[in-house]
Amino acid sequence: MDEMLTAIVDAARPRFTEGKVATYIPELGKAQADALGLAVMTVEGEGHSAGDRDYPFSIQSISKLISLALALTELGEERVFSHVGVDPTPDPFNSIMRLEMDRVHRPYNPLVNAGAIAVISLLPYGESESRTAAVLDLARRLTANGTLAVNESIYRSEKTTSDRNRALAYFMKSTAILKGDVEDVLDSYFRQCSIEAAVGDLAVMGATLASGGINPVSGERVLSTRVCRVIRALMATCGMYDGSGEFAIRVGIPAKSGVGGGIVAVVPRRMGIAVCGPSLDGKGNSICGMEVLEELSRSMRLRVF
Amino acid sequence: MDEMLTAIVDAARPRFTEGKVATYIPELGKAQADALGLAVMTVEGEGHSAGDRDYPFSIQSISKLISLALALTELGEERVFSHVGVDPTPDPFNSIMRLEMDRVHRPYNPLVNAGAIAVISLLPYGESESRTAAVLDLARRLTANGTLAVNESIYRSEKTTSDRNRALAYFMKSTAILKGDVEDVLDSYFRQCSIEAAVGDLAVMGATLASGGINPVSGERVLSTRVCRVIRALMATCGMYDGSGEFAIRVGIPAKSGVGGGIVAVVPRRMGIAVCGPSLDGKGNSICGMEVLEELSRSMRLRVF
Amino acid sequence: MDEMLTAIVDAARPRFTEGKVATYIPELGKAQADALGLAVMTVEGEGHSAGDRDYPFSIQSISKLISLALALTELGEERVFSHVGVDPTPDPFNSIMRLEMDRVHRPYNPLVNAGAIAVISLLPYGESESRTAAVLDLARRLTANGTLAVNESIYRSEKTTSDRNRALAYFMKSTAILKGDVEDVLDSYFRQCSIEAAVGDLAVMGATLASGGINPVSGERVLSTRVCRVIRALMATCGMYDGSGEFAIRVGIPAKSGVGGGIVAVVPRRMGIAVCGPSLDGKGNSICGMEVLEELSRSMRLRVF
Amino acid sequence: MDEMLTAIVDAARPRFTEGKVATYIPELGKAQADALGLAVMTVEGEGHSAGDRDYPFSIQSISKLISLALALTELGEERVFSHVGVDPTPDPFNSIMRLEMDRVHRPYNPLVNAGAIAVISLLPYGESESRTAAVLDLARRLTANGTLAVNESIYRSEKTTSDRNRALAYFMKSTAILKGDVEDVLDSYFRQCSIEAAVGDLAVMGATLASGGINPVSGERVLSTRVCRVIRALMATCGMYDGSGEFAIRVGIPAKSGVGGGIVAVVPRRMGIAVCGPSLDGKGNSICGMEVLEELSRSMRLRVF
Repeated sequence: MDEMLTAIVDAARPRFTEGKVATYIPELGKAQADALGLAVMTVEGEGHSAGDRDYPFSIQSISKLISLALALTELGEERVFSHVGVDPTPDPFNSIMRLEMDRVHRPYNPLVNAGAIAVISLLPYGESESRTAAVLDLARRLTANGTLAVNESIYRSEKTTSDRNRALAYFMKSTAILKGDVEDVLDSYFRQCSIEAAVGDLAVMGATLASGGINPVSGERVLSTRVCRVIRALMATCGMYDGSGEFAIRVGIPAKSGVGGGIVAVVPRRMGIAVCGPSLDGKGNSICGMEVLEELSRSMRLRVF
Repeated sequence: MDEMLTAIVDAARPRFTEGKVATYIPELGKAQADALGLAVMTVEGEGHSAGDRDYPFSIQSISKLISLALALTELGEERVFSHVGVDPTPDPFNSIMRLEMDRVHRPYNPLVNAGAIAVISLLPYGESESRTAAVLDLARRLTANGTLAVNESIYRSEKTTSDRNRALAYFMKSTAILKGDVEDVLDSYFRQCSIEAAVGDLAVMGATLASGGINPVSGERVLSTRVCRVIRALMATCGMYDGSGEFAIRVGIPAKSGVGGGIVAVVPRRMGIAVCGPSLDGKGNSICGMEVLEELSRSMRLRVF
Repeated sequence: MDEMLTAIVDAARPRFTEGKVATYIPELGKAQADALGLAVMTVEGEGHSAGDRDYPFSIQSISKLISLALALTELGEERVFSHVGVDPTPDPFNSIMRLEMDRVHRPYNPLVNAGAIAVISLLPYGESESRTAAVLDLARRLTANGTLAVNESIYRSEKTTSDRNRALAYFMKSTAILKGDVEDVLDSYFRQCSIEAAVGDLAVMGATLASGGINPVSGERVLSTRVCRVIRALMATCGMYDGSGEFAIRVGIPAKSGVGGGIVAVVPRRMGIAVCGPSLDGKGNSICGMEVLEELSRSMRLRVF
Repeated sequence: MDEMLTAIVDAARPRFTEGKVATYIPELGKAQADALGLAVMTVEGEGHSAGDRDYPFSIQSISKLISLALALTELGEERVFSHVGVDPTPDPFNSIMRLEMDRVHRPYNPLVNAGAIAVISLLPYGESESRTAAVLDLARRLTANGTLAVNESIYRSEKTTSDRNRALAYFMKSTAILKGDVEDVLDSYFRQCSIEAAVGDLAVMGATLASGGINPVSGERVLSTRVCRVIRALMATCGMYDGSGEFAIRVGIPAKSGVGGGIVAVVPRRMGIAVCGPSLDGKGNSICGMEVLEELSRSMRLRVF
């Protein structure tokens, strides 16, 4: 198994030249373009890894799964999905025009930026600090890594450069979709995006979602079966931004990517997989990460549809 | 098993009052609103059914799977997907504005009307008659029903009332996405939508897609494994129109619906399922059909994500 | 006066190289790119001309003014403007997406293609032949030229190549904005676009609109004062397609252009001006025609705002 | 003359019940719904007024003309119109989706909110305080009223409630259309919107624009002829928000409205007209103000097209 993972990583790594590291947040531009790490964790708790397994990266949009899981757990589906839809969209992750075109001005789903920001604004935890503490606590329980933390320099870099996210948030404030203070909500968003992890952490998180909520490393029930189902369904249809349709064909596994280069994938009842390669395609997904997942899906017959 | 299916059908049937039969094509308006049939076919060839199993209905958009399978088989993915995308969309099935907004004016995916019409125009079979013959031949092999045929009165009704589909087709002609004569291409589209079947037929088709291309009744290899994968991935992300996201959460199985009230669902490596209930929700999906599939998915643990 | 007009034409003519002749309708592609004619007619009936004053061209979108005038006269503003708006739009003249986005699916104004087609469909004259006869009759009275006629080869060329206009018309049929038979309505549209004229004809038409409806050559009251006002207001805000805003700044006179290269301009209470130069800019307006009008407006202090 | 103006005001006033006072900025909600004032100033310096001539109101969007005139004077047309277009739009004044749809992400024209904010960001005057000082100075010279000032309570109310304008500004910041600090630019926008005036002030400003830049009261040349032309052309095509087309038909004079209830209208070479009635229609234009202008245009034959 370890040999196969290593072979897959080695075969995919040279393709990093086909994409480029995200630069719209200056700190992200410092990522190592040819880094490539892979980790697998079964629902029985058996772990494997290959490549740059210790390479630390900010989880970025993968954090949307965590705050969504928290919101679903605390508030229930009905309340969450009255503020954000569950529809896949072909628009880019930071698109604003749908917010205006749609009659109820609701973001299309919780995995585009607008939807994730709206979800965060619903979290019943007072100000940004306590909101972030709750998200980070859940992140630690999902990964069985009690030391997971926000990378402060990435957080500060996001905070000073995210004008598009501010536009999304102020728009939603003007239509009453976003609750609370805009800058405070955005602060939480920037912090959760800046949580730093390695592929091993996210493989455990993936395994927890695969098992229906029980963390195979800690043995703790972290999420309900129902919340895991909702999240896996959203990953299957909207997890790879506007590349979700292509990914469904190529790989066939629910997954969620982040512009830090990470992707977490979930094979229900079998395993979690995490990969990180910071070189991105035009849609914001890791070039090598998708290549690794495609090959792994093929070799291990992981496709779910 | 038969008892369980019957119980599920009986429990769902009263909800037909929550929707209504499609009326924009006059002939469809004659459907029996409270009809509800269900059929299951395993990849091993074991069949079950319940309710109005012999109720005949036009397969409508479900036919998009058949012409797409034909195009993928004859022309390959590269050629097909240079004319139509693979992206889920939150727009209604007959939406035109994306065709203009998108820079290459390509329909979002082959399961919205514009995409299906574009796919048909690619089929290398001369005029409408031979094109329809090829689609019908594949439909018969997918269902192992050699008597499957076009319902002529529904076909004529579609042909005289489908102004929106004409708008889509002429628009694509003007942007060179659609090849050939517009009215001739549309004629094929109307004919394939008017193919009449019963749930048992579509369950066999679903089982063929589930098995990776081998019809469990006839034993014939009808499609390649690869083509089945592409089609199942598109069903998972775009099969239920703009209700695809909600269906993924509620049911969690690749499926395709038609405004005749039919839905075909595919559980890879396990079974095909077909249901028909002509009363539709606002998105064009069978109200009772979705209810039946949700309950069946729950009872038999069929979710794939 | 004649000298000044000639000097203006001669100075503008070399700029024809900056644009190109319309080619999407094959017959239009045969126009003479460097032709440039200019004619002026005062409300007192004094005419002047310069350049290729006898160059015959199809009036294309300029014909939208004529069928609109007919509809307003026969049906009144209330009825006409319940089917088409009066709003300027930055979209190209053949855009379709607004028809879907707008809640009532009404074309933005009668001078974009969709709007003009909708207006024609309202005309109370039976089939295309009698509708065209009525439009042609009004065209002859507006120009005081009883021999004005449809150019049959341009008409046939339009009819076989106007897929985008068919898309617009079928879309409007599907939303009940367009009344009657789509192909029959389009036939009238193609015919009126193919009416052939010279600049002298359109200068008389412009003078008739300038005078408030009395043709200064024939002395006939052709339109009511009120209809002329409505038409001049629409020319001022929407007459030059998506170049209307720029034209208002540069020239400051109500005008209407056609892709045959013609432009008719109206200086209320003073004169009509017509120019024709088939080389078009990217928005479909005559490059040299706009140059001539800008210079004429400056020299003769014709700006109205 | 005074009698006629009074009669027109008295006849229009009862229609205030058909609209309502703007409330999205709390301070605006305090306006007197049935107030109605009218003032006329000829280019020769002869003034008349009627109704609530001393009623003070914030000029709101009318201020867009002033900052645009300043930008055109200081920077020239080329630079200004590389950041903002000159195209009329049927979208509401605070619409954002066009900013994303348009390929260069440029606001459609300087009289929609996004365009006005972009123009302000170009002004070469350091921070908000000096920028506002320059705008206020020009406002005083245009009105010949040296005591014109910002209403501080309206300014503060705007500043705390304008989430939509923040969304527009941050979006433009993210696409590099807006220069400088977003909150600082918005501060200038809120301040200029809150300049308080009476109809007499705006009639003088209108007369200055009508005369080609010479204030008929002070005798000062305030703007160049060219800048006045550009501004009048934009007023004619885009001055009344998405009601510009209808206003062109009904009234036929270049004008600009504000949600404080004011409208300034310009009859080139003849006069400026100002009216204020805080009860607005659904597009944000003064109900009674438009009625007064329509009647005045009819009585005095003021239509320019």
